[in-house]
Amino acid sequence: CKYEYVRNFEVADKCLPNCWIVVRLDGKNFHRFSDDHKFVKPNDDRALVLMQRCAESVMNEFKDVVIAYGQSDEFSFVLKKTTTQFSRRASKLMSNMVSLFSSSYVYHWKEFFGDIPLLYPPAFDGRVVLYPSDQNMRDYLSWRQADCHINNLYNTCFWSLVQDGGCSPKQAEEQLRGTFSSDKNELLFSHLRSTTTVYQRCTGKALF
Amino acid sequence: CKYEYVRNFEVADKCLPNCWIVVRLDGKNFHRFSDDHKFVKPNDDRALVLMQRCAESVMNEFKDVVIAYGQSDEFSFVLKKTTTQFSRRASKLMSNMVSLFSSSYVYHWKEFFGDIPLLYPPAFDGRVVLYPSDQNMRDYLSWRQADCHINNLYNTCFWSLVQDGGCSPKQAEEQLRGTFSSDKNELLFSHLRSTTTVYQRCTGKALF
Amino acid sequence: CKYEYVRNFEVADKCLPNCWIVVRLDGKNFHRFSDDHKFVKPNDDRALVLMQRCAESVMNEFKDVVIAYGQSDEFSFVLKKTTTQFSRRASKLMSNMVSLFSSSYVYHWKEFFGDIPLLYPPAFDGRVVLYPSDQNMRDYLSWRQADCHINNLYNTCFWSLVQDGGCSPKQAEEQLRGTFSSDKNELLFSHLRSTTTVYQRCTGKALF
Amino acid sequence: CKYEYVRNFEVADKCLPNCWIVVRLDGKNFHRFSDDHKFVKPNDDRALVLMQRCAESVMNEFKDVVIAYGQSDEFSFVLKKTTTQFSRRASKLMSNMVSLFSSSYVYHWKEFFGDIPLLYPPAFDGRVVLYPSDQNMRDYLSWRQADCHINNLYNTCFWSLVQDGGCSPKQAEEQLRGTFSSDKNELLFSHLRSTTTVYQRCTGKALF
Ligand SMILES: Nc1nc2c(ncn2[C@H]2C[C@H](O)[C@@H](COP(=O)(O)OP(=O)(O)OP(=O)(O)O)O2)c(=O)[nH]1
Ligand SMILES: Nc1nc2c(ncn2[C@H]2C[C@H](O)[C@@H](COP(=O)(O)OP(=O)(O)OP(=O)(O)O)O2)c(=O)[nH]1
Ligand SMILES: Nc1nc2c(ncn2[C@H]2C[C@H](O)[C@@H](COP(=O)(O)OP(=O)(O)OP(=O)(O)O)O2)c(=O)[nH]1
Ligand SMILES: Nc1nc2c(ncn2[C@H]2C[C@H](O)[C@@H](COP(=O)(O)OP(=O)(O)OP(=O)(O)O)O2)c(=O)[nH]1
Ligand SMILES: O=P(O)(O)OP(=O)(O)OP(=O)(O)O
Ligand SMILES: O=P(O)(O)OP(=O)(O)OP(=O)(O)O
Ligand SMILES: O=P(O)(O)OP(=O)(O)OP(=O)(O)O
Ligand SMILES: O=P(O)(O)OP(=O)(O)OP(=O)(O)O
Ligand SMILES: [Mg+2]
Ligand SMILES: [Mg+2]
Ligand SMILES: [Mg+2]
Ligand SMILES: [Mg+2]
Ligand SMILES: [Mg+2]
Ligand SMILES: [Mg+2]
Ligand SMILES: [Mg+2]
Ligand SMILES: [Mg+2]
Ligand SMILES: [Mg+2]
Ligand SMILES: [Mg+2]
Ligand SMILES: [Mg+2]
Ligand SMILES: [Mg+2]
Repeated sequence: CKYEYVRNFEVADKCLPNCWIVVRLDGKNFHRFSDDHKFVKPNDDRALVLMQRCAESVMNEFKDVVIAYGQSDEFSFVLKKTTTQFSRRASKLMSNMVSLFSSSYVYHWKEFFGDIPLLYPPAFDGRVVLYPSDQNMRDYLSWRQADCHINNLYNTCFWSLVQDGGCSPKQAEEQLRGTFSSDKNELLFSHLRSTTTVYQRCTGKALF
Repeated sequence: CKYEYVRNFEVADKCLPNCWIVVRLDGKNFHRFSDDHKFVKPNDDRALVLMQRCAESVMNEFKDVVIAYGQSDEFSFVLKKTTTQFSRRASKLMSNMVSLFSSSYVYHWKEFFGDIPLLYPPAFDGRVVLYPSDQNMRDYLSWRQADCHINNLYNTCFWSLVQDGGCSPKQAEEQLRGTFSSDKNELLFSHLRSTTTVYQRCTGKALF
Repeated sequence: CKYEYVRNFEVADKCLPNCWIVVRLDGKNFHRFSDDHKFVKPNDDRALVLMQRCAESVMNEFKDVVIAYGQSDEFSFVLKKTTTQFSRRASKLMSNMVSLFSSSYVYHWKEFFGDIPLLYPPAFDGRVVLYPSDQNMRDYLSWRQADCHINNLYNTCFWSLVQDGGCSPKQAEEQLRGTFSSDKNELLFSHLRSTTTVYQRCTGKALF
Repeated sequence: CKYEYVRNFEVADKCLPNCWIVVRLDGKNFHRFSDDHKFVKPNDDRALVLMQRCAESVMNEFKDVVIAYGQSDEFSFVLKKTTTQFSRRASKLMSNMVSLFSSSYVYHWKEFFGDIPLLYPPAFDGRVVLYPSDQNMRDYLSWRQADCHINNLYNTCFWSLVQDGGCSPKQAEEQLRGTFSSDKNELLFSHLRSTTTVYQRCTGKALF
């Protein structure tokens, strides 16, 4: 066929061999999505478990995923270094994962949110990142966890001040601005509740 | 945060300026998916219109899509050359589109398939292809249409032979093996039905 | 051979079809190189013509180069859109060009600089840039020419002030700081020499 | 300047962090170049040492090169994993190295070839390859050495048969066709000269 030459404009995108392949997904505009669906603040159990359910779907399809780690509106999937799935083509891996995750989100919504209607289909972005060494790989996971912890600490303080501490959102924000983790841990501990009850929203699933 | 260095492993993937950006999606293993959901052969109207509905969702989000063209289990979205959405980052554009398309597929399933249950969440792959000239862009669309037409012609003949011609699938396949388009047009015309009734499954939507 | 697997770590780098391929070379640290070899300021004829000689060597090897444009310590080679040399592999094209240019520079030095010894082998960097449209291609050349003109104008004024106007380099720099092209054209015209004698250092060679 | 937008068509090409960066250079058409300059067969000492001299120039400029390994018309430079030279931009690293190597080849020719004239400037191609692990890196070097050894063995046998064994090139080729390393080692040992005198052309220079 005389038009077939256009196929040559496609570019090869194989991942460098012997690297960990991470596919990270993140909810598009979940600030609004979580508002629209009245997610509990700061952490909504149903949303969290739904995300985990979607990750499970992905892991059932992609047997070379060795760790999946999720928090907030994001999920990271780590493929083993030696995977040859889709010949390591980055677009194929990433698009299939983000697609299945997204369709699963709608498919399983009702199991976790019951009668609360899903107002519109959500979207997630996806990206591929390569990590050459195990140390880099561990540090990636630590990075996402630290991010999770920092957000959680802030959010937990913020909503504690608002919900239990009688602050307005504006006052809460002002009180927390510029504080360090230690301050926030202190705040949680002394005034509001023990840090031991800080919500553990970070979830991981290891399949080594 | 001492782990943040891992962000530097992300790579820039901006699309070359002044090129048409095509994002093509294609159903993962829709051979099986269409069987499992007993799609009408060769072309299932409901499936077709559902695909169009999903494309509409994508086009509502991505205002820079100027043409969307779909057939079978695939859809191509053409972004205008000058788009700056997501700073032209290929992964961002592609992942958001494939994600929204996929979640929409599940979200709108019931509107088109009614009581026929969706047995599992489907997945689509995605890719980005750049076309420098308008001629290349037109040829791309012609390529997908030719592909559509060739498939349609074959499928229509095949199912005509099976459904109206009393052939077994094996016999139909044997009869069509090695035939040219002209043979198949002839076959459709003389023995079975006029080519004028060949199902027009190819659908396009232009927004120039 | 059991080590041959390492070849798979090489990555494909074919240039997008139907684009102009530009390879631009630029002298490494020619600020120092031109000082060390006492190049005439602002424009040394011998250096200029040597650069042109090297470009000629490159063009004799690369028959698909349709324009070469040089100024100062740089040269741009434009390959026609349809070139298939080295299967359009970017690294192959660029490395062969920069290599031949560099070896030619040393090879032909004596023809232009006579007894002035070449103190050490020079180096040039190289890069590949793609331009989808003819307008982009023209604008690229205009860009390099504008750059050339701006530099020439500044340099010519600067050295005129120093050599003919009795300024110290510091005074000349101060006098020119913040001036516009029009000021500099005026300065050249009224005080020193007519702009018509502004050195035409920009050189191009078209082979359309 | 209204043309400056064309700079945005340049693409980022930073090497993945925490990988060994290998730049391999290889002589363009050295089959002919070595004939034209009557290189001794199979291994010409002068050519070999000139290559080493060029590698030295490169290593003096690029302090992050930790190993350089050369054989025949090629040289590989290994940059340490942590190098930040040129911000790890692949084109910059590779082009500067291949350029300096090439200009050095001409610059130092006379020191090794004396009165034998250099008939034309030679060219080398260049490429960048990344290796994530130390094992991959070692295997790369083993690969180039194995290649060296296989070529040397063949060449040494071939030229022994021709020069000492009274064969025509055609006869020598026929006699060696399909032989294994062991056959060739045997041949060298029993009939011509001891394998201990097989020319050690592979050269390496480690700077760990
Ligand atoms: N209330 C509530 N909000 C949540 C929960 N999980 C995530 N979110 C919200 C909080 C954040 O506004 C948002 C996640 O932050 P992102 O940085 O991903 O921003 P967002 O998704 O809005 O924008 P993006 O499209 O990713 O750039 O999702 C939850 O469990 N409860
Ligand atoms: N019965 C029926 N089947 C359809 C219809 N539209 C698409 N299909 C099926 C026919 C093909 O087997 C399949 C599309 O072909 P593909 O080349 O995309 O293969 P498939 O999706 O199975 O594999 P892939 O994962 O894309 O490599 O979908 C339809 O309307 N009716
Ligand atoms: N005197 C004199 N100098 C020249 C001539 N042509 C070029 N140059 C010098 C002036 C500039 O300092 C330098 C070219 O500027 P670049 O921006 O390329 O800087 P340079 O090569 O020093 O650094 P780079 O390694 O390219 O980043 O070469 C000439 O004909 N005469
Ligand atoms: N006589 C002789 N020839 C040599 C010596 N070193 C290299 N050569 C020649 C033998 C080979 O024909 C050639 C290197 O093989 P290559 O595979 O690199 O091929 P060539 O450079 O001809 O083509 P290319 O442009 O790299 O694809 O150089 C030497 O010391 N003596
Ligand atoms: O948390 P991230 O990585 O999504 O950070 P971002 O600031 O949203 O950046 P990006 O535009 O890469 O999604
Ligand atoms: O029709 P396509 O482009 O999907 O063709 P394919 O043979 O499925 O190839 P690919 O592995 O690129 O999806
Ligand atoms: O004139 P250029 O393009 O070389 O500009 P530069 O500021 O030297 O930038 P680069 O680091 O890309 O050579
Ligand atoms: O020995 P190499 O790696 O140069 O092998 P080649 O067969 O010359 O291949 P290439 O076209 O990559 O130089
Ligand atoms: Mg983000
Ligand atoms: Mg988000
Ligand atoms: Mg997020
Ligand atoms: Mg496919
Ligand atoms: Mg499909
Ligand atoms: Mg398909
Ligand atoms: Mg520069
Ligand atoms: Mg320079
Ligand atoms: Mg310059
Ligand atoms: Mg080669
Ligand atoms: Mg060679
Ligand atoms: Mg070689």
